[in-house]
Amino acid sequence: MARWEGNTRSRLERAALDLFAEQGYDRTTVAQIARRANLTERSFYRWFADKREVLFAGDDLEQRFLAALDAVPAGTGALPALLAAFATAPEVFRPRDFLERRAAVIAASPPLRERELIKLVALSEALTAALVRRGCEPQSARLATDAGLAVLRLATERWTADEETDFAEALSAGARDLLAVAAEAAPAG
Amino acid sequence: MARWEGNTRSRLERAALDLFAEQGYDRTTVAQIARRANLTERSFYRWFADKREVLFAGDDLEQRFLAALDAVPAGTGALPALLAAFATAPEVFRPRDFLERRAAVIAASPPLRERELIKLVALSEALTAALVRRGCEPQSARLATDAGLAVLRLATERWTADEETDFAEALSAGARDLLAVAAEAAPAG
Repeated sequence: MARWEGNTRSRLERAALDLFAEQGYDRTTVAQIARRANLTERSFYRWFADKREVLFAGDDLEQRFLAALDAVPAGTGALPALLAAFATAPEVFRPRDFLERRAAVIAASPPLRERELIKLVALSEALTAALVRRGCEPQSARLATDAGLAVLRLATERWTADEETDFAEALSAGARDLLAVAAEAAPAG
Repeated sequence: MARWEGNTRSRLERAALDLFAEQGYDRTTVAQIARRANLTERSFYRWFADKREVLFAGDDLEQRFLAALDAVPAGTGALPALLAAFATAPEVFRPRDFLERRAAVIAASPPLRERELIKLVALSEALTAALVRRGCEPQSARLATDAGLAVLRLATERWTADEETDFAEALSAGARDLLAVAAEAAPAG
């Protein structure tokens, strides 16, 4: 977690999450966040457009995944390509306690949940479009994206529960679990 | 499509979709919908709480799926159980042209898209909870639900494109496609 400590942005994030947890997201103001972090409001706005962006900004997962997908050799299958891109996620993930507290704040607020859902749909559409650009047929691209995001969710859950887990290995394990689930429903023949 | 014609509710639905397409969802009033259907506003409110409910009401897919899932014999695997429940969907589906026009109205309106997303998340959570009640481990239940909804989406897309397709067969074909996608990412061993 050391990489997130000691810098301005991280102090603001922690102050915001503390206040969201203590008094609720709606009641927390930017002024309070800045004060708690011993910084000025001006410092806050250097990093975030508003308090919501503390939860969603810097969340450049989509761009990261798209860039990583572009770097996967042509000819790689759709799901293996997605999983290779997802394997780069820990580089942008926050520490587990940040993710857990962020998830709790979002779960408690319907507007934040909506925002999270819409972001997920946007990510899903962007990945499907990227697979189509790689030559994948649209329905297969959609199915591979849905399957890939299911594996990503499972892997992230396991990784969040135990950060010692290697993320790439959690993705492989998730893909094997998906294969087992699918095999049960589609007997050979 | 005969089963949907000639009744009050169907007339209101068609009038509403016509108006949504012609002048936009936001600009359409309940009074206009009733007039177009040659019915009174009172008749409208006998069927729908408001104009949004023309798009979402009677959409009892969740209850239908949960009831169908309960009817699947114990011991059936998670994904096969879900697909068996999904196979009952055509009984509540509307005709293809209704579904297509409804989808176009929703796609054009961010608040309606949000509403649709939230409904999908609720369905997903309800199915996962139902699988857990059937004895499935939570992470497997979640993964099977994600996989099942991916197959349902694919099957519905194909069925909407060609209503002569048998829906149960479209689900089986989707499950085979999912297996092929998963196998590519999880080589044996």
